[in-house]
Amino acid sequence: MKESIPKFRQITATIKDIRRQYEEDLSLVVSVPSVSSEPDRFPDVRRCADVAAGLLRRAGATAEVVPTGGHPVVHASLVTDPGNPTVALYNHLDVQPADPGEWSSDPFTLTIHRGRYTGRGATDDKGPALAAMTAAALARDAGIPLNYHFLWELEEEIGSPHFASFLRERKRQIPADSVMVSDTIWVARATPSIPYGLRGLLPATLSLQTARSDVHSGVAGGVARNPLLEISELLTRCCDAETGRVKIPGFYKGVRRPRKGELERSLAVTGFTAKGFARDLGLTSIRPNLSTDLDVVKAFSMMPTFEVHGITGGYTGPGSKAIVPHRAEAKVSMRLVPGQDPIHIARLFREFVKRQNPDIRVKTFPALQPYLGDHRGPYARAARSAISAAFGKEPAFTREGGSIGAVVAMDRILRVPISFLGLSLPSHGYHSRNEHFDWGQASGGIRMFLHYFGEIARIRPPRRRRTAKG
Amino acid sequence: MKESIPKFRQITATIKDIRRQYEEDLSLVVSVPSVSSEPDRFPDVRRCADVAAGLLRRAGATAEVVPTGGHPVVHASLVTDPGNPTVALYNHLDVQPADPGEWSSDPFTLTIHRGRYTGRGATDDKGPALAAMTAAALARDAGIPLNYHFLWELEEEIGSPHFASFLRERKRQIPADSVMVSDTIWVARATPSIPYGLRGLLPATLSLQTARSDVHSGVAGGVARNPLLEISELLTRCCDAETGRVKIPGFYKGVRRPRKGELERSLAVTGFTAKGFARDLGLTSIRPNLSTDLDVVKAFSMMPTFEVHGITGGYTGPGSKAIVPHRAEAKVSMRLVPGQDPIHIARLFREFVKRQNPDIRVKTFPALQPYLGDHRGPYARAARSAISAAFGKEPAFTREGGSIGAVVAMDRILRVPISFLGLSLPSHGYHSRNEHFDWGQASGGIRMFLHYFGEIARIRPPRRRRTAKG
Repeated sequence: MKESIPKFRQITATIKDIRRQYEEDLSLVVSVPSVSSEPDRFPDVRRCADVAAGLLRRAGATAEVVPTGGHPVVHASLVTDPGNPTVALYNHLDVQPADPGEWSSDPFTLTIHRGRYTGRGATDDKGPALAAMTAAALARDAGIPLNYHFLWELEEEIGSPHFASFLRERKRQIPADSVMVSDTIWVARATPSIPYGLRGLLPATLSLQTARSDVHSGVAGGVARNPLLEISELLTRCCDAETGRVKIPGFYKGVRRPRKGELERSLAVTGFTAKGFARDLGLTSIRPNLSTDLDVVKAFSMMPTFEVHGITGGYTGPGSKAIVPHRAEAKVSMRLVPGQDPIHIARLFREFVKRQNPDIRVKTFPALQPYLGDHRGPYARAARSAISAAFGKEPAFTREGGSIGAVVAMDRILRVPISFLGLSLPSHGYHSRNEHFDWGQASGGIRMFLHYFGEIARIRPPRRRRTAKG
Repeated sequence: MKESIPKFRQITATIKDIRRQYEEDLSLVVSVPSVSSEPDRFPDVRRCADVAAGLLRRAGATAEVVPTGGHPVVHASLVTDPGNPTVALYNHLDVQPADPGEWSSDPFTLTIHRGRYTGRGATDDKGPALAAMTAAALARDAGIPLNYHFLWELEEEIGSPHFASFLRERKRQIPADSVMVSDTIWVARATPSIPYGLRGLLPATLSLQTARSDVHSGVAGGVARNPLLEISELLTRCCDAETGRVKIPGFYKGVRRPRKGELERSLAVTGFTAKGFARDLGLTSIRPNLSTDLDVVKAFSMMPTFEVHGITGGYTGPGSKAIVPHRAEAKVSMRLVPGQDPIHIARLFREFVKRQNPDIRVKTFPALQPYLGDHRGPYARAARSAISAAFGKEPAFTREGGSIGAVVAMDRILRVPISFLGLSLPSHGYHSRNEHFDWGQASGGIRMFLHYFGEIARIRPPRRRRTAKG
């Protein structure tokens, strides 16, 4: 690890010690099932915040679990000198649900095998959060003149409903000159990437009830409406299943086309191939209309989508049950891109459903705005240099298909440059069963963050009113 | 009960005693969760057969639990004199699955409240089975010169896969001159009906897998195929959700049109109304193309259907999970009518799916043939007279929308007249939550069966080789 440490003080910790501590900490946080979407887990989410605050304090930070209208935010500061510049480090510690039956080991017990860390949240985003914390402590030990504010959210997986109000209230206590976010995914293991754009997300449910309870299909079949069929038909009208083209009128209006050469440049640097992408994600086949690598990059990073996540209603147990279901619900979401306004799209969607089948109820949930940043300036240069130094590879500046609600909030409220230094790989099973992280990405990440901190410590803060306290 | 007992000996049992015993027996058999479709319940299904055989023995019958390739059949005989004619009484003791969360009381504990018996199987078909058993014992006590063979199946709800082979093997030991089936549903509480036709049933699953596991929609959304969307689209191509019209080419070929006046006659007698039908079943609305009462009767009794019973795949837990599912499966079935051959329809269905989406796997399950009997002859007259005597109402001869696989097997193998003397009402929640039966139908049923037995004991058996032993 020595080669990439900036030329401040030498760090005395050995890689072996750092790794042992990192694995211990990751085991601890993964063992707390902080599933923010499941009401039964709410106490665990809170416990995760407390555990995380404890780790930050051990690292020397002043940590606070800040209540919000929902799950808390962990806000911690590691101040080397109030006169030094400050970076806000954003991560989240809440996780996606996990069905133990689908996993090869318990999702909430970290399994360590040959440097692979399997457990829910390992790569999204507990592993990267702890890598950033580890790097900040090492940078402090190395004498890098930088202060750190940790913003560890616990509502990212449910769309960050309270993060903007948390930020607005705390703004004066977060004297950040820049933000670093580590919650994004490389294009491939061999090709690090720095995203400068994110898609937005508009989640919704479609539900229909046509009877008091399920009825026998021998008694009522032919007469009773079948809500599963009606919901299926509506889904088909919203989106072409084969191509994924969204058929809601006006949906694509405003979608910004990629800048000239934008896709090509990104492809050239990353060496991205559709084949490798499908292999990493375990896709048996991809949509048949995507014939080139460019088509694929465009489809997952610059184009909006309409997805069905699950359909409930009727009988789904073992064997068969000849009933006509009395209700059906589809969980859906749309990924949105710059140029699309979630509020406007939600209205178009509602109106469309109403015209197609007025009995179907649409419920939309708080949306995430799409984000388009910049990939120029000193912070972007520092990020590029940090990746090269740590991983020996030129990063690609790319647009990413995911959504991080907090990013839009930080952009609007903190108004400072945001760098994305993610560590997840497509093969890590982000949001899937057997999610994992690995020591290669964790240790490389620690090196990368150290280098980045050394670089940005030298950036002269832009004109900006600073409060006296760090 | 006295008025309707045929003029043989007087029965000495009091109605109070009969009722107490009936409720005790029904409580006992309902308490055994004989769900034939759920592998975990297989021992319970077997136990139900043993319990039932015990009740039949107590009633004086010789009972045997006959093994088959699947669940057993209870075969019992109550012989008054080998020279007397014999009726085979068909019922089934297996039940539909029941989700306790949907019920207002435990589905496998009979709740008795003001003559209403709530529990899974109460009306389908444990209640009617015990009414038939009770009536046979009373008829024997009354000296009615008739022998009884009880055929109590335990695989009716899964399509009677072994009943035909059971019958073929046992044919010589079942010297039936006629069959009585009590597993059908009246048109309304006020309008008893005797079905002479049944729909068939072709169950199937449609499944599609497009990836190794679910993937994050932020990572792969737009590129990854969405199997829930593709299955939805296929369902929509199979069947028009609004009207229920099946769109598989050739599906309606051969469907027999109702005979001239068939629907009208049935309507006139039964006083059926679409409004009452919808109310009894708890349907908020019915398919909009069914504008008259005739349309409704035709739709549920004489026309085939395509139903979706449930769709699995992706995420269906609380909250949301932004994934693209890696697989989806739809449980479907088609009700078929006389003139449609399930094997031919299964082939049309497979070919259609293959043309629409060759990646979707079709699995069909053993089908039930549609059935069209006759409503003339001495047994039909006896049935009509029994209903009039017991319920004070003229029955309607109708076609029923459900399917009883065993009926087709008995028709083909035993080759004797079959009468349908059902006791279930549309409001009984057949196949639904809070299924129930009631003493009104049970006691009326016992009277009806007694009368029927008295009538058919007088019918001179048609020429038919009889074995010496009853």
